[in-house]
Amino acid sequence: MKDEHIELFIESVVSVFGTMLGCEVKRKEPYLKDGSQATCEVSGVISLSGKAKGTVVLSLEREVALCATEALLMQRPDGINADVTDAIGELTNMIAGSAKAKLEEYELSVGLPNVVTGSGHCINFPTESPPVCIPFECEWGTVVVEVGLVVDPPQGTESQAV
Amino acid sequence: MKDEHIELFIESVVSVFGTMLGCEVKRKEPYLKDGSQATCEVSGVISLSGKAKGTVVLSLEREVALCATEALLMQRPDGINADVTDAIGELTNMIAGSAKAKLEEYELSVGLPNVVTGSGHCINFPTESPPVCIPFECEWGTVVVEVGLVVDPPQGTESQAV
Repeated sequence: MKDEHIELFIESVVSVFGTMLGCEVKRKEPYLKDGSQATCEVSGVISLSGKAKGTVVLSLEREVALCATEALLMQRPDGINADVTDAIGELTNMIAGSAKAKLEEYELSVGLPNVVTGSGHCINFPTESPPVCIPFECEWGTVVVEVGLVVDPPQGTESQAV
Repeated sequence: MKDEHIELFIESVVSVFGTMLGCEVKRKEPYLKDGSQATCEVSGVISLSGKAKGTVVLSLEREVALCATEALLMQRPDGINADVTDAIGELTNMIAGSAKAKLEEYELSVGLPNVVTGSGHCINFPTESPPVCIPFECEWGTVVVEVGLVVDPPQGTESQAV
């Protein structure tokens, strides 16, 4: 991961949380993920592919997931239900989409978001694509964005539609 | 999900487990996933995008994940470690790649696999892409493949690299 890519994802998170949720997030220091760290209770996972391949994970504490859904739908969900997983999937999609727009040279397409729930789950990236974790704090709690991006060699065809 | 697509994924699982792991799997009856069902302890997740978009999840009981890794690497792993997550990611990649080759008309590209670990995790698909779950039994235990695939309208451009 290049430093400028990390900055792009930070800008995307700040902008999507500010614009869509009216929520100010403060970035903390990014770090490299060691496989054993569990992520938060609710994680949106989305894939990027094109001239680079990668994954963006938006991992939220339970309370952040509930408050973010409430801000989007104007109604407090009863618990972690389909409204929450769809809302967090859509947030992940917006963050990945916003970063994708700034990474034009890789001609990225964004997959469908899946949302993993359950306390203590851990999302492992392939060894060749170690993720950078970017933590944020907001009034609702902690948000961590994990990004792993691998830029293919120019002649690589594996990531192209064939 | 069309019935013929479900058949393609069944063929892919049978063929990859047979060829790569020397393990015969027996298919059980597919069912639609209701969001509340937890998946097994180790799940490989991979994204498909192109003229259709979707996700393939290969969910394995702990013992199946350990035995499959042992069959691939010729060495028994001590527990769910990076060898196991890389091996299960690669298996998921092979199953998705094998199905992709048979779905030429959608010009699919396959993303990088991520592997979710932790008992009781649940992988939620977007509401517009409800997954079909295909359970299999093998000598090591239970394997479930979950597939959600959304075919875009012909004029859709969202899934194209732009």
